[in-house]
Amino acid sequence: MDSVETRLRYSDENCAIRGTLEIVGEKWSLLVLREAFFGLRRFDDFHRALGCARNLLSERLAKLVDHGVLARVAYREPGQRGRHEYHLTEKGLDLQPALVALMQWGDRWTVDHDGSPVEVLHRGCGGTVRAVLACEHDHTALAPQEIEAVPGPGARVAAA
Amino acid sequence: MDSVETRLRYSDENCAIRGTLEIVGEKWSLLVLREAFFGLRRFDDFHRALGCARNLLSERLAKLVDHGVLARVAYREPGQRGRHEYHLTEKGLDLQPALVALMQWGDRWTVDHDGSPVEVLHRGCGGTVRAVLACEHDHTALAPQEIEAVPGPGARVAAA
Repeated sequence: MDSVETRLRYSDENCAIRGTLEIVGEKWSLLVLREAFFGLRRFDDFHRALGCARNLLSERLAKLVDHGVLARVAYREPGQRGRHEYHLTEKGLDLQPALVALMQWGDRWTVDHDGSPVEVLHRGCGGTVRAVLACEHDHTALAPQEIEAVPGPGARVAAA
Repeated sequence: MDSVETRLRYSDENCAIRGTLEIVGEKWSLLVLREAFFGLRRFDDFHRALGCARNLLSERLAKLVDHGVLARVAYREPGQRGRHEYHLTEKGLDLQPALVALMQWGDRWTVDHDGSPVEVLHRGCGGTVRAVLACEHDHTALAPQEIEAVPGPGARVAAA
């Protein structure tokens, strides 16, 4: 059975990519997360960095908090009212390979001739960091042709 | 200077993540690409797999072709009119780490208790494939705390 027939036998209702996109698959959500990885935590800093409407930013932050990607943490500056910061949770930090992968694609295919606006480095070592595909038997930097997708334990046969 | 101050000194107008999202950062575009990585190439197969409206699918395929992520290739079945297939280009294939990274996040954080609907394997070797962060000095599976983002050659200082 070829890969097209195999694919079409299964439903995508529990697709992990679709599930991910329903939580973070919207441009402003991913840009908020980009800023969180840069170290931003406060509403006014996100707003200044992104330049989007405040209500749009509020809505995206609330959705990311609802899904446990960001945690809302109270703080108070001396003499000011209490506010909240937004911290990446373990679930949020786990998006780093996806964001680095999206960034390196953009570095290769979309940025202008000045080169990358941001470099991702291995702290201490200083080496440039890339998102690569690696297998559990330590084969790394796998090419697309070296990879195959097969139905997993959660695959569901499509309705006829 | 802390990371927030550093971040806020720079514009995001040439951000590589933003550039990527402008091309593929829409749910249906990424789902079309998911199917292309599963081996689908024909309009009717994409339509059957995705279950979206035909005009939406046409529009997304056209945009991916315009940006060189997919190539439109003519074919003709015996006795039928000529049609087109959609093949991943080098630019499209280069999105695989991003798609695998989004999928593995969904596998960990969104899919139900049945487990992953799709497994990505190293062809021949059979090992499970993951998207990991690795540096040019061969340190692999880097954790978020081991990574820092710094301004690159294309960084532009933000307008005051």
